[in-house]
Amino acid sequence: MSKLKLRISMSLDGFVAGPEQSVANPLGIGGMKLHEWVFPLKAWREPHGMEGGEVNESSKVVEESLQNIGATIMGRNMFGGHPGPWDAKQPWMGWWGDTPPFHHPVFVLTHHAREPLVMKGGTTFNFVTHGIAGALAQARKAAGGKDIALAGGAKACQQYLVAGLVDEMQISLAPVLLGRGERLFDRVDDLHGLELVRTIAAPKVVHLKFIRA
Amino acid sequence: MSKLKLRISMSLDGFVAGPEQSVANPLGIGGMKLHEWVFPLKAWREPHGMEGGEVNESSKVVEESLQNIGATIMGRNMFGGHPGPWDAKQPWMGWWGDTPPFHHPVFVLTHHAREPLVMKGGTTFNFVTHGIAGALAQARKAAGGKDIALAGGAKACQQYLVAGLVDEMQISLAPVLLGRGERLFDRVDDLHGLELVRTIAAPKVVHLKFIRA
Repeated sequence: MSKLKLRISMSLDGFVAGPEQSVANPLGIGGMKLHEWVFPLKAWREPHGMEGGEVNESSKVVEESLQNIGATIMGRNMFGGHPGPWDAKQPWMGWWGDTPPFHHPVFVLTHHAREPLVMKGGTTFNFVTHGIAGALAQARKAAGGKDIALAGGAKACQQYLVAGLVDEMQISLAPVLLGRGERLFDRVDDLHGLELVRTIAAPKVVHLKFIRA
Repeated sequence: MSKLKLRISMSLDGFVAGPEQSVANPLGIGGMKLHEWVFPLKAWREPHGMEGGEVNESSKVVEESLQNIGATIMGRNMFGGHPGPWDAKQPWMGWWGDTPPFHHPVFVLTHHAREPLVMKGGTTFNFVTHGIAGALAQARKAAGGKDIALAGGAKACQQYLVAGLVDEMQISLAPVLLGRGERLFDRVDDLHGLELVRTIAAPKVVHLKFIRA
């Protein structure tokens, strides 16, 4: 069966976003520090339409994270920080731009129903109001046998972790402190069999890969 | 000048001790999970008077942590969980036994003055009531040019980290969750120039070494 794969950057003190997240600053104060390792990479720049970039030990981790993914699940904060309900006259399109980098169906967890939002490049945002298990079932169907990425944010990850539905977890640990913000493991106290199977050290990050035993 | 070296095991969710620490359970509920990587090691068993044991990627980390250390600083919880004031008639001797594994002067941060406690094997517990900077100065003098180990617990580490007095930090990250307890980085939001310089993956642990740039 296709796997649910959590991929996220976390600070040494356990935060995956800084405080005071907003539409203007979606990662929260200091949140950019979590991702400094990824922006210089060719493997990140290329899918985002930029030339050049570095190749280092992180490159294969980024490439691997994009392989065989047929659908993505995310929280509504990650879609665009809008709490809903959605305004049909001035619909909020999220902060991923006209051509989001997913190129496959994305399932957004929300309390507010909305018609699917078809973007350029193969990304469709689907708004799911019936909970995490239903979203996973829909994503699995849409993925057509491929795996499903769990992209964040913290609250979406926590719900899937608590329910024991995560099959693989890649934590990219940034050796920095945020001090405040959203903790990945808030309200989570059991890994449900996820075991550390691979550690890759790279500039400004250590990638920890967990697989359900 | 001699360096202050923090050495501690931390869970993936940032805890260095579980909740409800007591004299009966000094590591708190679940706290033993942080140290499962170390107990099987020959490098840990030998100094504790036990035969046999494993040799793996953690061995050199443990051996390195014992090298060139002339004094140790710890909080009063780590000495023995006793809040003080000390009872002169029935003095609490800590939970390290007759022959503590330090074999050098140990400086215990406390609010309650007490005469030094001389143990077998070269360990003397000195009780310091005038704060972390004073304890460090005393430890440095006692270490005679060697380095100083900062052994824990969480609150002692936090105070030295906040003051920017830690020269080297080795976090042994256990891939487990505790959910509750004492966080290493509670109230700490700045590494004061400590940078990740080495990552060693070993069974049940990833060792992250930070040095002040």
